[in-house]
Amino acid sequence: MTGSSMTGSPMTGGAREAADDEQRLARAALTRIVEPGDELVGAWLRRMGPVAVMRLLAGAGKPLSEASAERLAGYRLRAAGLDPSADLAAVRAVGGRFLCPGDQEWPQQLDDLGDARPIGLWVRGRPSLRYWALRSVAVVGARACTGYGAHIATTLGAGLAEAGWVVVSGAAYGVDGAAHRGTLAAGGATIGVLACGVDVPYPRGHAELIGRIAERGLLVAELPPAAHPTRSRFVLRNRVIAALTRGTVVVEAEYRSGSLVTARCAQKLGRATMGVPGAVTSGLSAGVHELLRGEATLVTDAAEVIELIGSVGDLAPERRGPVVARDLLDPASTRVLEALPPRASTDVRRIARDAGTGSDEALARLYELQSLGFVERHGERWQLSHDPGPSGRARRGGP
Amino acid sequence: MTGSSMTGSPMTGGAREAADDEQRLARAALTRIVEPGDELVGAWLRRMGPVAVMRLLAGAGKPLSEASAERLAGYRLRAAGLDPSADLAAVRAVGGRFLCPGDQEWPQQLDDLGDARPIGLWVRGRPSLRYWALRSVAVVGARACTGYGAHIATTLGAGLAEAGWVVVSGAAYGVDGAAHRGTLAAGGATIGVLACGVDVPYPRGHAELIGRIAERGLLVAELPPAAHPTRSRFVLRNRVIAALTRGTVVVEAEYRSGSLVTARCAQKLGRATMGVPGAVTSGLSAGVHELLRGEATLVTDAAEVIELIGSVGDLAPERRGPVVARDLLDPASTRVLEALPPRASTDVRRIARDAGTGSDEALARLYELQSLGFVERHGERWQLSHDPGPSGRARRGGP
Repeated sequence: MTGSSMTGSPMTGGAREAADDEQRLARAALTRIVEPGDELVGAWLRRMGPVAVMRLLAGAGKPLSEASAERLAGYRLRAAGLDPSADLAAVRAVGGRFLCPGDQEWPQQLDDLGDARPIGLWVRGRPSLRYWALRSVAVVGARACTGYGAHIATTLGAGLAEAGWVVVSGAAYGVDGAAHRGTLAAGGATIGVLACGVDVPYPRGHAELIGRIAERGLLVAELPPAAHPTRSRFVLRNRVIAALTRGTVVVEAEYRSGSLVTARCAQKLGRATMGVPGAVTSGLSAGVHELLRGEATLVTDAAEVIELIGSVGDLAPERRGPVVARDLLDPASTRVLEALPPRASTDVRRIARDAGTGSDEALARLYELQSLGFVERHGERWQLSHDPGPSGRARRGGP
Repeated sequence: MTGSSMTGSPMTGGAREAADDEQRLARAALTRIVEPGDELVGAWLRRMGPVAVMRLLAGAGKPLSEASAERLAGYRLRAAGLDPSADLAAVRAVGGRFLCPGDQEWPQQLDDLGDARPIGLWVRGRPSLRYWALRSVAVVGARACTGYGAHIATTLGAGLAEAGWVVVSGAAYGVDGAAHRGTLAAGGATIGVLACGVDVPYPRGHAELIGRIAERGLLVAELPPAAHPTRSRFVLRNRVIAALTRGTVVVEAEYRSGSLVTARCAQKLGRATMGVPGAVTSGLSAGVHELLRGEATLVTDAAEVIELIGSVGDLAPERRGPVVARDLLDPASTRVLEALPPRASTDVRRIARDAGTGSDEALARLYELQSLGFVERHGERWQLSHDPGPSGRARRGGP
């Protein structure tokens, strides 16, 4: 593996690279070998770095302990014949990239997962994952939801989008799909965190939805291109949803549901944990009610969700990278920012036209600019912030 | 008024009387003059006693302050031509009595209301209000409830009854009626706290239900016989429900509903406050959800209610009267206690037969004996307590 040739930087847009090419290839390879959330490998990574861990798994080292021997043996079988460069090429082919910890686009709040932090993230879509995730909330729930659950998830997605929040979910049937769809229908920003490769349309019936999320939002996965989901991957994916967002809202969940895993993980990470109640006669609300009898907060609409997560403060602000001054914005974001009128609000279509870009691209940039404090969304319209934040004042230049 | 003749003790069963006849007549008269919860009159009662307050209202004194003058004038109009002895006779005619603070049957937890404590209570039914209230919980909610709310209230009433709890409600349409009916259907104990006289079947459509409660349970009112309800009397009645019980469960309530008054009052008095969630799309659950977003606890069934109120401990235990030893039980209760087999459980019908009494009477006594720790209810069956409590060990005598 260490002899593989590099076919170019997997990052687009000239982002500051923290991982060198060898490390990046090693992490990419490790995502194909190691199951998500493996804390043993996470600890090795922390102590040895990805290149040494990759060597160990390729057979060039002794197992570190009796306990790790068995797991190593399994991983070594997978380590044979890997071609991470091909995976990097495959993700680029679908408009994606591979993010490593330390990359400018890496969402630093994932570090809260400790040794269970993803080894890397395969990402598909235009926007910056880091900036979008800063102002995001998870809406999750039962696959086999009722009409009530689907209605609530759709309404929540739309309401959060209209208030300028990014909606994160798992792209599954039921509540997840309804949350993504409600968000997209309101012209909002949504992230699908998958338990398979970002080029795998799973579930099959959501192929079209997943395609739309990739075009207008972001798809994120720990698993490399073409990887398929398993039961444990679904469960482990949930910790990424919880860690990425400021809070998790559960809409319908039975006892022992996967959504409760997400909620409990969010709770453990200090994120806001919320649940939408339903009839006590509905088994699909039983898990939510159990949650609400604990530490979770009952919410009935998007306003109540925002009231709670808005007060949580920025994620891991003490570890955020340098504040982005206006002069450091990339050219595409600057064009979009300059397309906003000085004192009025306007819609995405007009901003896109004036910036000379497509509206999906304009929307991606607007959500980034919002995360950075330059612009605000009000319903369907965008305007310059009154206070563009500590990152420098936006020039009030007209189009 | 002070010249009215007494026609005999208004208390049945030889209870220890704290109020002398003159005081009792004065309090009975005051319930016809003073609106429930009047804290000004409550303060006068505390400082002067009922006879002096009655003299004041009959015109034999000057108003105590500028502020009180207007209210006094209104009350003085009502004070003319009162005949409290006739009221006492009227309540006796329907199998009732008039309780004053200090009476053995007076529920001392009502003293938590301070100067808003009821002046006296008109009571109808066989059981001891004090003993029943010691192990009681309020189930309240919307009059115009949905089928869901009615179903929940019925189920809760039955579940609480089966676990030996006394269900208190307001005898209104909707949730209240369903709670009473569910309790009665499970052969349980229920108390209706009315905003009118205990001989007034209000609402008219609940005449039959109110009659059954009087026969098999208790009706309680601050207002004298024949008095009619008003909007403010409904609201003020709620504080009695809250103070009487160990906790209040709200089943469906709109914003600004009267049930929320009961819940907030319960909260202020340190009682458990609970709500049953519903669909967030239902306006009839909006008030409950608002409550649950505050200090109230979400409950989904009777077991969860009992878990909470069971841990609250006895009401105002430090001010409870002398513990009742077995030898001090009245003859009717002793007969029922002796009808229970030594080591097995049995049903009410059999207990009534062996005690030589009716089954309503037997049930009333059983709930009293349960409050005192002598017996336990398990579903439809009753048995002697393993630990009859500090009040003396029940003799394990067979029938």
